[in-house]
Amino acid sequence: MSYQPPVQDLMFCIKHLSHWDQVSALEVYSDYDLSDIGAVLDAYARFCSEQVAPLSYDGDTLGAQFDNGRVTLPDANMQAYARFVENGWQALTHPPEYGGMGLPRAVGAAAVEMLNAADMSFGLCPLLTDGAIEALLLTGSQDQKATYLEPLIAGRWSGTMNLTEPQAGSDLGRVTTKAVLREGGSYGISGTKIFITYGAHDLTENIIHLVLARTPDAPAGPKGLSLFIVPQTMVEPDGTLGARNSVNCVSIEHKLGVRASPTAILEYDDATGFLIGEENCGLEYMFIMMNAARFSVGVQGIATSDRAYQRALAYARDRVQSRPVNGQSKDAAAIIEHPDVRRMLLRMRSLTEGGRAMATATAGLLDIAHHQNDPQMAALAEFMVPLVKGFCTERSVEVASLGVQIHGGMGFIEETGAAQHYRDARILPIYEGTTAIQANDLLGRKVMRDGGETARLFAARIAQTEAQLATGDATLQAIGASLTQARGTFEAALDWMLDNSRRDIDAAFAGSVPFLMLAGTLAAGWKLAKGAIAAQEARDAGEDTPFMAQKIATALFFAQHIFPDCAAEHTRILHGSRSLLDADFPE
Amino acid sequence: MSYQPPVQDLMFCIKHLSHWDQVSALEVYSDYDLSDIGAVLDAYARFCSEQVAPLSYDGDTLGAQFDNGRVTLPDANMQAYARFVENGWQALTHPPEYGGMGLPRAVGAAAVEMLNAADMSFGLCPLLTDGAIEALLLTGSQDQKATYLEPLIAGRWSGTMNLTEPQAGSDLGRVTTKAVLREGGSYGISGTKIFITYGAHDLTENIIHLVLARTPDAPAGPKGLSLFIVPQTMVEPDGTLGARNSVNCVSIEHKLGVRASPTAILEYDDATGFLIGEENCGLEYMFIMMNAARFSVGVQGIATSDRAYQRALAYARDRVQSRPVNGQSKDAAAIIEHPDVRRMLLRMRSLTEGGRAMATATAGLLDIAHHQNDPQMAALAEFMVPLVKGFCTERSVEVASLGVQIHGGMGFIEETGAAQHYRDARILPIYEGTTAIQANDLLGRKVMRDGGETARLFAARIAQTEAQLATGDATLQAIGASLTQARGTFEAALDWMLDNSRRDIDAAFAGSVPFLMLAGTLAAGWKLAKGAIAAQEARDAGEDTPFMAQKIATALFFAQHIFPDCAAEHTRILHGSRSLLDADFPE
Repeated sequence: MSYQPPVQDLMFCIKHLSHWDQVSALEVYSDYDLSDIGAVLDAYARFCSEQVAPLSYDGDTLGAQFDNGRVTLPDANMQAYARFVENGWQALTHPPEYGGMGLPRAVGAAAVEMLNAADMSFGLCPLLTDGAIEALLLTGSQDQKATYLEPLIAGRWSGTMNLTEPQAGSDLGRVTTKAVLREGGSYGISGTKIFITYGAHDLTENIIHLVLARTPDAPAGPKGLSLFIVPQTMVEPDGTLGARNSVNCVSIEHKLGVRASPTAILEYDDATGFLIGEENCGLEYMFIMMNAARFSVGVQGIATSDRAYQRALAYARDRVQSRPVNGQSKDAAAIIEHPDVRRMLLRMRSLTEGGRAMATATAGLLDIAHHQNDPQMAALAEFMVPLVKGFCTERSVEVASLGVQIHGGMGFIEETGAAQHYRDARILPIYEGTTAIQANDLLGRKVMRDGGETARLFAARIAQTEAQLATGDATLQAIGASLTQARGTFEAALDWMLDNSRRDIDAAFAGSVPFLMLAGTLAAGWKLAKGAIAAQEARDAGEDTPFMAQKIATALFFAQHIFPDCAAEHTRILHGSRSLLDADFPE
Repeated sequence: MSYQPPVQDLMFCIKHLSHWDQVSALEVYSDYDLSDIGAVLDAYARFCSEQVAPLSYDGDTLGAQFDNGRVTLPDANMQAYARFVENGWQALTHPPEYGGMGLPRAVGAAAVEMLNAADMSFGLCPLLTDGAIEALLLTGSQDQKATYLEPLIAGRWSGTMNLTEPQAGSDLGRVTTKAVLREGGSYGISGTKIFITYGAHDLTENIIHLVLARTPDAPAGPKGLSLFIVPQTMVEPDGTLGARNSVNCVSIEHKLGVRASPTAILEYDDATGFLIGEENCGLEYMFIMMNAARFSVGVQGIATSDRAYQRALAYARDRVQSRPVNGQSKDAAAIIEHPDVRRMLLRMRSLTEGGRAMATATAGLLDIAHHQNDPQMAALAEFMVPLVKGFCTERSVEVASLGVQIHGGMGFIEETGAAQHYRDARILPIYEGTTAIQANDLLGRKVMRDGGETARLFAARIAQTEAQLATGDATLQAIGASLTQARGTFEAALDWMLDNSRRDIDAAFAGSVPFLMLAGTLAAGWKLAKGAIAAQEARDAGEDTPFMAQKIATALFFAQHIFPDCAAEHTRILHGSRSLLDADFPE
């Protein structure tokens, strides 16, 4: 089963949902029009489907290997990564002054989706490198940028994020890795970091670790963390590589999924590190970088969902089994004809395309906010990031599970490939902040802190789309009616949350994940509804293609099959907090 | 992490939910009272936790091995199975005349749960043997019973079900394995069977395959199938073992989960088979046996859920991370204190205990129906079987997934053990009839065929419980109010289904799985509510224990957090059929 990159839908989303008129008007993107972007995505799609997708199954089977401190990846992965570097694909969204192509974030998101759909293990390395580049761009010194950015953007070096320690997972305040200032201005870094994605591997000449650590007299807790650059191999003043730094891989994890992506335990033994920005500001810098990484992990959810969907769709077309339930034929039919298989496929498709629509829209907002310095856009974009991460990753587990189900018994056999998505997807609601962390971020920082202002702006924009839908045909009106209902449950839950933020904060947080899922479901369905309007406009203008009809059908299915979850989440939030908080767990 | 068999809750369910007054009044069970049953379950629990649970992780890692036609299991599995036979545990529910202990089905279900919670791979062998015993008891000749039942019930031989072929999965009418009558009355069986659980292994002296095949002049389709006994090794007239039969294991599957349970491809090459009952009645016999197997697979769902819950609970008590969200303490807390972790744990617990409650009730109904020949009880029991299978297995995937989530990054590491449940659970909604097959069975055979009579009886019995709840305290009344709402959505969906069974059968089947999940959720919550009434009565009578308080709290949580799904399923059924049936899947 080959991977078919969804370039048509990605371009549809960029054109109609990424706020393209505003994004393309930004000075920084003035060099590109939609046809340029289409050409880039076509080329990237070919790379993903031809060079990466074929290595996915074997990569998972062989896995990353650890031997005496050295981590190796399968040969096919090495070769594909070498081509990735040759083609300069790491450069897509990064600034031209360091060798980047300077493309909008929505294009970057499309690329992240395709690469991770082709193989999530492979896609993780560039994803982490993107994060390191972003952090250095925003917080590095001129010298640091000059030293590290060009090789990272070229893909010759890769980047990592070193946060977690055995006693410090979600709770970074518990980080104990030490950083001691040396003469000359560098720091000696000592400690153990775990769960370091691509923390050790042989794909690149060097690995640039970004490490959270604590100076000797730093305050306790999260406000005493500083961020350091710790190169695996030291970089000489002329840019050539020098001696190995004293950071060593102790072992790699034996994981449920993404097995061709090494997850390292790293031991720092007075390794040489360089402070980024100021001491004790590390967590703040990390958060900047984490917003980008969280968004990308949400996109990984879309990626895995789409690959699982494509695989299930191909199987459902091919597999002939059982007569139609309506008794109209004595012949067995392809299972895609059976209503419940259609139901599962349409759930998969609508959740995938809904996620893609909301992620593309969010990418556009992030660009506008960043380059126009628009605080309202920034607030909206930051409101959307936990929705993209939380909704797209939680739903990817469901979508991958449906993908196995559609295959029946064959789905449980590893060689079929459906099970790999089910295994891979499971990390997505966990890393870069669990769903609960996203929900706390949404509720605490992005809803309560501004008294619900951004959340109300979000709802008001949805109401505008409803007004547009109301002037459309019966299908658009039906989508609009469901959207209105779903928005109503969101606003009622929002009022309840704001009210409880003052009088029963535990009750509010007892509903944080249901609230996140309600808002995420609403956002995805809203963007699909906007897409349906655009598709109908295209049809009215003569572009009456199966693709456009499908965009409308998918939005309608989402409205009628996924939106009902909003009311259920609303009920749980409003009526479920006491039963949750009062229950006991006797030994 | 050790397994704690939930004997207290199992006994609570048997006493209060298995219709114990009626079951214990049956002649066939007159030898046993509740204290006898408690003693049996205590001993079985010890076997499961001490002998089986410890082998689960290594068994999964080592897996079943295939070498040149021979399948071997890890030594620890061999030894534990030998003890299983020594203790006579296969005999629990089978008739004393063949060496069985003749215990009620609810006790059998409790045993199936504990064994499969300890290790699902291990539990599958006795589960399949139970199915073969059941089939022989109901349809075998006196001679066949005399030959095969005693060693099967002793556990010295095991049984298998041979249905599936590469082209015949859910669609058994496509089976092509041939059975040719020979002189002397035996048949020559030739063909290939796939997905045969424990189709080849070295745990027992012999394996008794029950095989669906087609005689040369049988009608096409499902009505031309006959059922045959094909022993792996021939049985001499004196009961000793003779020559190997010509059935060979070609290979075993490389699976997502239950890896210590061999899934064989068997090649029958003119193997000697013995007809069971009459020619062309094989599917009917298979269905008798499948009802029992489907029920047991539902119980496997409860088993996996409970094990996943216990593991997550232990971790959540142990793992200290992050301050409470209410800001009342500066110290990090055990994660069980965090509201969203509580939410996940309570979802796991309420879904697990809800499944256990409904399964125990169904086991009682099956006994009453069988031994009293009561058609109304039989209809109710048969209505419940697809709910137990569908609801408990679909929810087990969700519960196992939440178990991984509670562990955070550690959940993705195989050594933690949470991932194994997530992998194991995934087969449950597939084998012994997918969820869609269960839903079609429910809707077609158990709702539409009798014009909704049994479904209305089900609803009427729920209304009786609501009346009882209305006379209770505020908590019981709150549970009752949610139960009334959930029943309302079921009855509305039922009316719609019956109406559409006449005018738009495709629309009805488009909602079959949502209808199954609605009914299953209702049934589980109903039985928890009945349990809450019994628990309150126990408290009122002076048994005011943490266990009884927990039973009530769990029922309330289910009512407020799980019942809201009923309304969502109802909306999907009533308003989602056209968007499902009309959507296209363009190339």
